[in-house]
Amino acid sequence: MLAAARAAFAERGYDGASIRAIAGAADVDPALVHHYFGTKDKLFLAAVEAPADPEDFLPDVLAEPPEARGAAVVRMVMRVWDGPARPAVLALVRSAINHEWSAKLLREFVLAKVIRRVIGSLDMPVHEREARGALVASQVIGLVVTRYVLRLEPLASASPEEVVAAVGPTVQRYLTGDVVLPG
Amino acid sequence: MLAAARAAFAERGYDGASIRAIAGAADVDPALVHHYFGTKDKLFLAAVEAPADPEDFLPDVLAEPPEARGAAVVRMVMRVWDGPARPAVLALVRSAINHEWSAKLLREFVLAKVIRRVIGSLDMPVHEREARGALVASQVIGLVVTRYVLRLEPLASASPEEVVAAVGPTVQRYLTGDVVLPG
Repeated sequence: MLAAARAAFAERGYDGASIRAIAGAADVDPALVHHYFGTKDKLFLAAVEAPADPEDFLPDVLAEPPEARGAAVVRMVMRVWDGPARPAVLALVRSAINHEWSAKLLREFVLAKVIRRVIGSLDMPVHEREARGALVASQVIGLVVTRYVLRLEPLASASPEEVVAAVGPTVQRYLTGDVVLPG
Repeated sequence: MLAAARAAFAERGYDGASIRAIAGAADVDPALVHHYFGTKDKLFLAAVEAPADPEDFLPDVLAEPPEARGAAVVRMVMRVWDGPARPAVLALVRSAINHEWSAKLLREFVLAKVIRRVIGSLDMPVHEREARGALVASQVIGLVVTRYVLRLEPLASASPEEVVAAVGPTVQRYLTGDVVLPG
């Protein structure tokens, strides 16, 4: 079932993949998928081997006013990385960079579960959402790789609040600021 | 010789590794290392398996006035990636994310050969250099992973100039702007 789910999510994306089709590909009854995984959301988290459920972290971000959302995103990312999930997150990032299907899954995960939630809570024209989301991802993913994988100093040893002070304004600009948007 | 060079550069960094010590570790005469690789710089590029020599690209960046350097850095990165070196660069990034020693080599390469050259050409207090360099790296590396590895839209399909317009101001702020620097 998980193999079928991974293939479906990677190929058709989170929205396009249905539990019915995944059950069909795995040759089982859709009720069995529901029984084991509950919702499509939980199945997706299991398929991605998500080290943490964004629902545990997003409410804190969404509780911040729009003009503090950039700092909140950067703070959330470091809370996940500095917590017990770090080895699993690192494994996920490595896998995504090594395997095309895994990159597709991570992209879907980041898009559907994190970026859309953060962006969707802000008031902006629909056509801006994807572009602002991708720009936020570019800075956040770069921060993660630089601080935790390459361990480039002084970013690697900086306190979370120092990182928030330096990088938060960039994420804020991408979320709500004046940007010439691509696409 | 290359194995000894990789170990030395990963352990002691570009500045700390000497041709004499590398030759000693490889049990050959330093003159032989010079004969095969010329300068320490060329030996380093060979050890990293650098897909491109930054010296081919940096002069265009350094020719720009300081206030246009951010856009020039983003433009340079895309020129390397959109050129024939792309598969080799991707292999280098993958290797760095998979292997600790390879991450150290890539960090040294990016630091010693690219960031220091770009930052060193700007007028700023010495203690700001590392921090601004690491912040530039965080945005540039994130752009590369998002656009070329995860292929997140609309960043993946945007024209180079669209990317420069959106991301250039961030790099410019990190290089010369008002930033609360970590460290």
